[in-house]
Amino acid sequence: MKTGEFAEIVEGELTGGADVEITGVAAIEDAGPGDITFIASPKFMKYLSASRASCVIVREFAEGPSVTQLKVANPYFAFARALECLYPRTVDTPIDGGRAVVSESAVLGDKVTVFPFAYISDGASIGAGTIIYPGAFIGRDVKIGRDCVIHANVTIREECSLGDRVTAHAGSVIGSDGFGYVLEGGVHYKIPQIGKVVIEDDVEIGSNVSIDRATIGETRIGKGTKIDNLVQVAHNVKMGEHCILVSQVGISGSCDIGSHVTIAGQAGIADHTTIDSDVIIGARAATMGGHVTKGFYLGAPVTPHREFLRAQSLFLKLPDMNKKIKELEDRLNKLQKESKDDASGN
Amino acid sequence: MKTGEFAEIVEGELTGGADVEITGVAAIEDAGPGDITFIASPKFMKYLSASRASCVIVREFAEGPSVTQLKVANPYFAFARALECLYPRTVDTPIDGGRAVVSESAVLGDKVTVFPFAYISDGASIGAGTIIYPGAFIGRDVKIGRDCVIHANVTIREECSLGDRVTAHAGSVIGSDGFGYVLEGGVHYKIPQIGKVVIEDDVEIGSNVSIDRATIGETRIGKGTKIDNLVQVAHNVKMGEHCILVSQVGISGSCDIGSHVTIAGQAGIADHTTIDSDVIIGARAATMGGHVTKGFYLGAPVTPHREFLRAQSLFLKLPDMNKKIKELEDRLNKLQKESKDDASGN
Amino acid sequence: MKTGEFAEIVEGELTGGADVEITGVAAIEDAGPGDITFIASPKFMKYLSASRASCVIVREFAEGPSVTQLKVANPYFAFARALECLYPRTVDTPIDGGRAVVSESAVLGDKVTVFPFAYISDGASIGAGTIIYPGAFIGRDVKIGRDCVIHANVTIREECSLGDRVTAHAGSVIGSDGFGYVLEGGVHYKIPQIGKVVIEDDVEIGSNVSIDRATIGETRIGKGTKIDNLVQVAHNVKMGEHCILVSQVGISGSCDIGSHVTIAGQAGIADHTTIDSDVIIGARAATMGGHVTKGFYLGAPVTPHREFLRAQSLFLKLPDMNKKIKELEDRLNKLQKESKDDASGN
Repeated sequence: MKTGEFAEIVEGELTGGADVEITGVAAIEDAGPGDITFIASPKFMKYLSASRASCVIVREFAEGPSVTQLKVANPYFAFARALECLYPRTVDTPIDGGRAVVSESAVLGDKVTVFPFAYISDGASIGAGTIIYPGAFIGRDVKIGRDCVIHANVTIREECSLGDRVTAHAGSVIGSDGFGYVLEGGVHYKIPQIGKVVIEDDVEIGSNVSIDRATIGETRIGKGTKIDNLVQVAHNVKMGEHCILVSQVGISGSCDIGSHVTIAGQAGIADHTTIDSDVIIGARAATMGGHVTKGFYLGAPVTPHREFLRAQSLFLKLPDMNKKIKELEDRLNKLQKESKDDASGN
Repeated sequence: MKTGEFAEIVEGELTGGADVEITGVAAIEDAGPGDITFIASPKFMKYLSASRASCVIVREFAEGPSVTQLKVANPYFAFARALECLYPRTVDTPIDGGRAVVSESAVLGDKVTVFPFAYISDGASIGAGTIIYPGAFIGRDVKIGRDCVIHANVTIREECSLGDRVTAHAGSVIGSDGFGYVLEGGVHYKIPQIGKVVIEDDVEIGSNVSIDRATIGETRIGKGTKIDNLVQVAHNVKMGEHCILVSQVGISGSCDIGSHVTIAGQAGIADHTTIDSDVIIGARAATMGGHVTKGFYLGAPVTPHREFLRAQSLFLKLPDMNKKIKELEDRLNKLQKESKDDASGN
Repeated sequence: MKTGEFAEIVEGELTGGADVEITGVAAIEDAGPGDITFIASPKFMKYLSASRASCVIVREFAEGPSVTQLKVANPYFAFARALECLYPRTVDTPIDGGRAVVSESAVLGDKVTVFPFAYISDGASIGAGTIIYPGAFIGRDVKIGRDCVIHANVTIREECSLGDRVTAHAGSVIGSDGFGYVLEGGVHYKIPQIGKVVIEDDVEIGSNVSIDRATIGETRIGKGTKIDNLVQVAHNVKMGEHCILVSQVGISGSCDIGSHVTIAGQAGIADHTTIDSDVIIGARAATMGGHVTKGFYLGAPVTPHREFLRAQSLFLKLPDMNKKIKELEDRLNKLQKESKDDASGN
């Protein structure tokens, strides 16, 4: 691909020749001739003049360096597009001779690819262009939209539905029973989990994720939301659009989460928490129910991040604070003793 | 089902007609004609008079509302029974034409269902009525009791045993090697993990759970214990009966846990911790070994919950406390200076 | 096996007869006639005289007990060797009649065992002696070395490579897409993850682990590193040799970790953290980026462990400290009032 072609794709402006052939994408430190690279943050501009790359994507042109620069509004986005253009996804084709099991009552759209050892149950429907890898289990009456990718060993239980362009990475489980019991006679009696999971369009689900079906009704993941590996989403959670759940986050039952919410790694959201749109919950923070309004939070329970950091910065000073309190007490004791001695005329 | 029939099943008392047909179960806010719903907590009684449900399960009758009320000792339990009665579990039947691999030396009870792509190894035994879904791997000499459900892509390694009515949700692994190494010559030398896992009757295991086999002897999960998704149970853990392990809990090696213990989400139990029966460990709390006696604990290391909350409530006040200490010091300095000045006659 | 034979294997010294037959290995409290056991820590020496074991492995001979003692430099290592000798691993053989799907372009070494329902894609190569269990998915052009064990339902995505003697426990996923998006036009646009995962020799990967492929380049796990269950390793992480990652640890993107690093259970390593060799990160500790030098750390953010413990020991004293501050303030107020009263001649 020529630099000029790519500049057109990303609607960018070039400093130099539009005829340079680019054949690969690399990080700024590693890029060599033939590579396109990018600088998203000003602090990496120092690498620019020494770069041997054939083209560097920038937000603002730098004067001086001889390397060809390509100016775009969002260099990181242009980088993603470069990866797409230069490394088109190889579509695997199933090996002849193996076979899947597909129910006669399942409805498969155009150009659906089903690999050997995938199992598609009665009443399932799979949209056009979707790929189902080996070991995937598609339960009864599951609906999967167009152009989805269901990776190996994914389990999608009965009656759940996925929109279009959903990716479920290997080992994930959609629609396992919600964790609901009632104590009766000293034992935990199971509450049947008769609801389902609805995954909207353009959701990506990491590997080894668990998303439980609702007790009644649905667990719902909104359009465009991205879920990292090993995340837990419990029964009856409603999650809005374009959220980010980083790895090992746990969302407890019946949480109601807005759109454009980011929950960073290993954070925990207690059951029945309401989270407004545009909230950021920092890594390892935790809610304890209640209502979290727009803002950036840290700590457990979640606290506006500045307030949390102020308190946290004193945690390691506790020994000093404690020592100081003791000193003050000693001085005060001494002072009072002196003052009493003074008063008594000594 | 008529209200009267259901009242008999749950041994409840009706305010109104026993002949109302109920066809569904819904939450109090959503329930309409034909639905049965429940109120487990007094704070939801306000919904009662406006409810369009055909029947509301309550703990105590409320006077006034025209809706039919059904009084039972444990409304949440009656709700679970209603779900069972009105939504009987659909039993999936394997699709013709696919096949499982079952060893000739495996012994299968009456009416065992084995789906295509399940693999049952030599010497395994599967009790009557048990269902093995696609992709499940049953290792050598594994024993599974009656009426178990082994969901898709579950792995049960050699020599492990499950009691009756055990459910293992999709993607769970029972009997992977314990994490045991000894440092010798600068490398981690593997300690063979020759023990097994024993799961007693009526245990439910969530999706993507890992339960490791013992180094020697057994890892044991007691009768009626319920384990949520993505939980880790390490080698040689002994867990009592009717415990609750919420999602993403980690139990380290050789812990000895009593019965009716609840460990809430994302909590961590360090190795060799002994936990007595009836302990509650709150969400994200952590033990550091030692012996935890009956009580409700929070924090890391675990602390009786009131004591922890008292301390925690002051964490965000650290900046105030620190400021106050500085003020006191300043005042004391000033006071001493004045007193010295006084003493020197100024 | 005779005690004498085993003494030779571990280069140990016996107190007693070399002709005692040992047939099993047990913990010191449980060991009976025919068993060999070990004492690694002096505090267990009290069990020695009462032991009914046929042989006890010790670091130093104890005088008095009649039980045969075997002295070695590293008793725990000798214990591991005893387990190996007395409980040789049973190698499962695939059941006749089932079949795997193996691409014609895949290259399998000598004595590779492929179980039914395993799927081996085009261009894959599998080294001699490697075992691939049911439900394992081996992606396109994956390279697996010699004597590896790929357990049931493991997924290894395209182009990843494993060295020799690597074990991947059930349900693990190697090479799922890194979690990379760029916000453009209000949606999270996927950054193609075109890199791979490289697992070096002698690595062991627990069950339900997720190791993501790099955006560009590789995610690398160094030789001899051991990873426990349910661990997350994000894209572009570089991990050195002989590290230990305990269960439920999360390593975020682009971390650069040295060798002989231990990260204990549920700890979290924020993205772009650099960790030097020989670092120990305690359970549930967390880094927030930056550079962690050799040492033992606890807390979040990570703090040298002594400093953290000093501060932590005061956390529960916060109510006392707060009360003391109030008392000091009251006393100071009173003192100043008195002193003012004095000054005014009252």
